[in-house]
Amino acid sequence: MIALTPDTPYYAVIFTSLRTEGDHGYSDTAILMEELSKKIDGFLGIESAREEIGITVSYWSSLESIKTWKQQADHRIAQRKGRELWYSAFKVRICKVERDYEFSL
Amino acid sequence: MIALTPDTPYYAVIFTSLRTEGDHGYSDTAILMEELSKKIDGFLGIESAREEIGITVSYWSSLESIKTWKQQADHRIAQRKGRELWYSAFKVRICKVERDYEFSL
Repeated sequence: MIALTPDTPYYAVIFTSLRTEGDHGYSDTAILMEELSKKIDGFLGIESAREEIGITVSYWSSLESIKTWKQQADHRIAQRKGRELWYSAFKVRICKVERDYEFSL
Repeated sequence: MIALTPDTPYYAVIFTSLRTEGDHGYSDTAILMEELSKKIDGFLGIESAREEIGITVSYWSSLESIKTWKQQADHRIAQRKGRELWYSAFKVRICKVERDYEFSL
């Protein structure tokens, strides 16, 4: 679903990735990480899709909340496995959302 | 592919969308819009994936380049068709990319 984020400004982390072959526990961990990230104070929402590349955008109220999530213990283990097993490449972009607008039928 | 963007800061436009049923000329226009956006001065790259939702992130050197693309004539026609035909909902977020880092095997 399209994330229901508050009025700007807020923050976005754009995580773009290329997967390696095979699952290697990736799918279970992805579900768990999404559940855990939602428990972090300042988490606002998440959007995700994968075709040739995967794009996951998570939204946060502050840079501090992003840092808290980056340093969360289980997430740190997942980050290590990401480099060792799951991703052939990724890029992380930390952004300030300055303006937004939307449309719906 | 993961977009090869320059050193921060630069800008990102996160376009998250839900499609209506059927193509209605969407696919051809999507390809054309990607080609046209690349011709705008300040365009840096684009990343796209669709599953339940579609996420397209385009990268730009400045807010002015984003505005130029938003007002481009063919793009304006596509935006109107987007509201009339292709999307049941979308959200556009204009962001300043403050920091980034990457990994590759």
